Amino acid sequence: MNVPVDHLDHRIRGGWTSSGAADAELPAHASRWLSARTGLTPRRTPVAPDSGLAVAESELPAQVRAVLGSIVGPEHVLVERADRLGRAGGLSYLDLLRRRGSGELPVPDAVVLPADPAQVQRVVEVCAEHGVGIVPFGGGTSVVGGVAALRGDKSSVVVLDLCRLDELVSVDPVSRLAVFQAGVVAPEAERLLAAHGLTLGHFPQSYERATLGGFAATRSSGQASAGYGRFEDMVEGVRLATPRGEWSVGVAPASAAGPDLRQLAVGSEGAFGVITEVTVRVRPAPVWQRYEGFVVDGFAGGAEVVRALAQASALGTVTRLSDPQETEVGLTLAGSWKMAALRGYLKARGIAEPCLLVIGWEGQTKHEMLLRRRSSLRFLGKAVRLGTAAGEVWRHGRFSGPRQRDALMDVGMCVETLETATYWSRLGELRTAVRDALVASLTTGERRPIVACHISHSYETGASLYFTTLVPRDLEDPVGQWRDAKAAASEAIVGLGTITHHHATGVDHAAYLPGEIGPLGVDVLRAVRRELDPDGVLNPGKLV
Amino acid sequence: MNVPVDHLDHRIRGGWTSSGAADAELPAHASRWLSARTGLTPRRTPVAPDSGLAVAESELPAQVRAVLGSIVGPEHVLVERADRLGRAGGLSYLDLLRRRGSGELPVPDAVVLPADPAQVQRVVEVCAEHGVGIVPFGGGTSVVGGVAALRGDKSSVVVLDLCRLDELVSVDPVSRLAVFQAGVVAPEAERLLAAHGLTLGHFPQSYERATLGGFAATRSSGQASAGYGRFEDMVEGVRLATPRGEWSVGVAPASAAGPDLRQLAVGSEGAFGVITEVTVRVRPAPVWQRYEGFVVDGFAGGAEVVRALAQASALGTVTRLSDPQETEVGLTLAGSWKMAALRGYLKARGIAEPCLLVIGWEGQTKHEMLLRRRSSLRFLGKAVRLGTAAGEVWRHGRFSGPRQRDALMDVGMCVETLETATYWSRLGELRTAVRDALVASLTTGERRPIVACHISHSYETGASLYFTTLVPRDLEDPVGQWRDAKAAASEAIVGLGTITHHHATGVDHAAYLPGEIGPLGVDVLRAVRRELDPDGVLNPGKLV
Repeated sequence: MNVPVDHLDHRIRGGWTSSGAADAELPAHASRWLSARTGLTPRRTPVAPDSGLAVAESELPAQVRAVLGSIVGPEHVLVERADRLGRAGGLSYLDLLRRRGSGELPVPDAVVLPADPAQVQRVVEVCAEHGVGIVPFGGGTSVVGGVAALRGDKSSVVVLDLCRLDELVSVDPVSRLAVFQAGVVAPEAERLLAAHGLTLGHFPQSYERATLGGFAATRSSGQASAGYGRFEDMVEGVRLATPRGEWSVGVAPASAAGPDLRQLAVGSEGAFGVITEVTVRVRPAPVWQRYEGFVVDGFAGGAEVVRALAQASALGTVTRLSDPQETEVGLTLAGSWKMAALRGYLKARGIAEPCLLVIGWEGQTKHEMLLRRRSSLRFLGKAVRLGTAAGEVWRHGRFSGPRQRDALMDVGMCVETLETATYWSRLGELRTAVRDALVASLTTGERRPIVACHISHSYETGASLYFTTLVPRDLEDPVGQWRDAKAAASEAIVGLGTITHHHATGVDHAAYLPGEIGPLGVDVLRAVRRELDPDGVLNPGKLV
Repeated sequence: MNVPVDHLDHRIRGGWTSSGAADAELPAHASRWLSARTGLTPRRTPVAPDSGLAVAESELPAQVRAVLGSIVGPEHVLVERADRLGRAGGLSYLDLLRRRGSGELPVPDAVVLPADPAQVQRVVEVCAEHGVGIVPFGGGTSVVGGVAALRGDKSSVVVLDLCRLDELVSVDPVSRLAVFQAGVVAPEAERLLAAHGLTLGHFPQSYERATLGGFAATRSSGQASAGYGRFEDMVEGVRLATPRGEWSVGVAPASAAGPDLRQLAVGSEGAFGVITEVTVRVRPAPVWQRYEGFVVDGFAGGAEVVRALAQASALGTVTRLSDPQETEVGLTLAGSWKMAALRGYLKARGIAEPCLLVIGWEGQTKHEMLLRRRSSLRFLGKAVRLGTAAGEVWRHGRFSGPRQRDALMDVGMCVETLETATYWSRLGELRTAVRDALVASLTTGERRPIVACHISHSYETGASLYFTTLVPRDLEDPVGQWRDAKAAASEAIVGLGTITHHHATGVDHAAYLPGEIGPLGVDVLRAVRRELDPDGVLNPGKLV
């Protein structure tokens, strides 16, 4: 299909928001609190104007550009500065710093906009033939460098922007399957499914911009994973464009015909092929939803509650537990709670270290929703109920994290997240290890970091930990400040959990992959890559 | 650990049973019914005495034998005829025919019995160094040639019998994880877990003999898959011995650190390494169980009921629907029903084509079990309830299939099963296509096959189909009779479903793998194999 090229303007940005600036300023009370708590001296550190960023001339050979133009139409091969700049990397803190002038931006030599899987296939073959690197690009929301336009050993690299692959190909309501083109953005997928009374139920924080192809490429996990599963659990089939031809996997809900190659395609991060279509399991859209807030005492006790819920199949569709630090930050920044009064109220109820627990239940009928709620409540004995208001506060802000980050960056904060997962018996140890590493790395005479953590994805055998770090930015060396902290956190994770639960490997975690899957695991991934991409043009420098 | 070598005698067999003969004869009424229904002229076709089978001399070089003996102890390198014969292939109908004198038995040159993962690793390295093929062998219950001692391009092949790897290595009751050595037989695993109040919940028909390593290698699925998941869903980690060293995968319940390599190890059928340990998710052993039988009208209607259950998360722990043919065979062979009387009873209740539906519910409490039951019953509107007696009949016979097969073979029947899976919208078409292909291939002037089918594994998006075929054996060409029928059924499956839902690829399905995963999928598997096993010694001739 055809998208007007100016529809793509949102990709040219220095933050989550279209304009490149935060669309909401940090409230004054939040700024005051941050100053007192972290040592921040608020200052405006806005996004640098695009014109100030260094962008080299495109090195895509004219001949290749002509061939690509003959496939997708010359108007869909973009070499203008602004178009290339718009797809220069993702949305990690370091990416955003680069857009604010710190560090080099990996700008592609061109942006190619194929219209359908067949065009993607031809583009991939042409790039392979001419040794041009290919970076598959969906919503551009990677926070691990997954869409950085690195050249590797190639002399030029193009971003393959999949935004024109935006169709719902087919729906099988009997089997509850839907086939989507890879470039469909999550809200659009939900809109298309809603017309059939269906939902995918995949709501990561990147929901507003991320694409279905990106979810598959990165093993994404949404906020409602307890109800709907991780994205990999939803994927029934994947169609990829590889330099050696099209490859489709998935013919049945389950199979014993050798290893599950769908699970090799899911998480391949563009290194084994460009995902052009995904077949996903869908479900009837929920009619009833109810979100409630609870407060439990201390992270360890809260984690025990979540474990009990997970092991009794009694989790809500959404179940998330904030540690004391995140509870404090969340309630303070939201501004809707008087912390002192709340603390008194909770203390009177025996809560020394308040941990916010938000649970959301869904159902086709009110009865079904309430049945699920009742099933959860059995495990919440001593929790203090804050009611639906606290649940709704979370729900309305559920996708606001990236915008808040923009606002925090604008006042001079270093703000970034990282995540991991492990088995229940190690969860407390892992949280402490990562916390301690981040605090130690980021604390200086004047700067006092906040390290906040939550559990948002729980399984019978373990759970994820999601850390948010807030500290005044080191204006001398902002990149080094976070690089060191991230390295310290990553070292703390190795041996205790996975280096990433749902952010993927990209560039940022590649160094830790051998420690997790072993040198043989890396060799296996390299062998698969070599087999499908003998010339090594697919997403250079990512995964392995 | 040490197992007395004579403990292995059960592996020397011509059927499921230790003695090599059926331990139960076919009841006279069943034999009469089969004669009338299929044209069978019952005759004794017993297992050939071992002494009549052709077994070549061992070609394992003396030097290799000595090195292997130095690793595992000379008494654990078996080259005697009986020991080698006991591990000559699995338990498919064709395997059993070979043991009855039809077709060549793939007899290994030696049987090696390592004591632990470290010994397995050294044995694998020695075999790789000397170019000796390795067939990993657990319970030897493969029905697809997965443990056939093929040489491939090697001049000798050893069976690596893992029966001495029989330990529960560790239990983490908090995370609900257990680490087992690969050779632990399923009932032993349940016994070891029961001491901790836990269960694995994996009960395939091969349960009595199959091992945990074998389950992982073949992507096994148990009868209680609706309650406990497929084996691949239970696997949290895998440890493999490969010619290039040990490889362990799995550090967290879920991860986005690249593709899920656990799902590459699970289903690798011994071709990527010898699985020496598996880490599995376990659950509290159920306290309450209730099995009931129902009759629904016609396969299509029954499948709609199962689909509704699956899509509403209302399946029992066990949920299986027999088609009219299987219902007839099952009730007749069980002998506990007077078919004519039952038919009348059902007809009066509007059931023209009786299909037996067995559902089993489990729970930690009676309340929980009954809640699950109530949740299922909502979808069983017009089904005729046969009560718990019919459920118990199934439950008591749930592992008896292989023994019944022995008895049927003894009276001159060709009896074999095959299975597939597909999405709900194609399920009826797939059943008809496979049925028609089998019936057409096996019908002659005097022989009238019975093709019976059931759904035993259901998912939100689809289900498995399991076919049992009964026809008088072609005594002139028994191998050809089944080969042709299996080929016809496989051709019918291609394009409609997976070539195997839980039996694995082995030798028998290898030819159909490219049609399912594409030539690129085969190349990917080959590349992984080459990477881990450059000399190609692992399970020659299997998978790819």
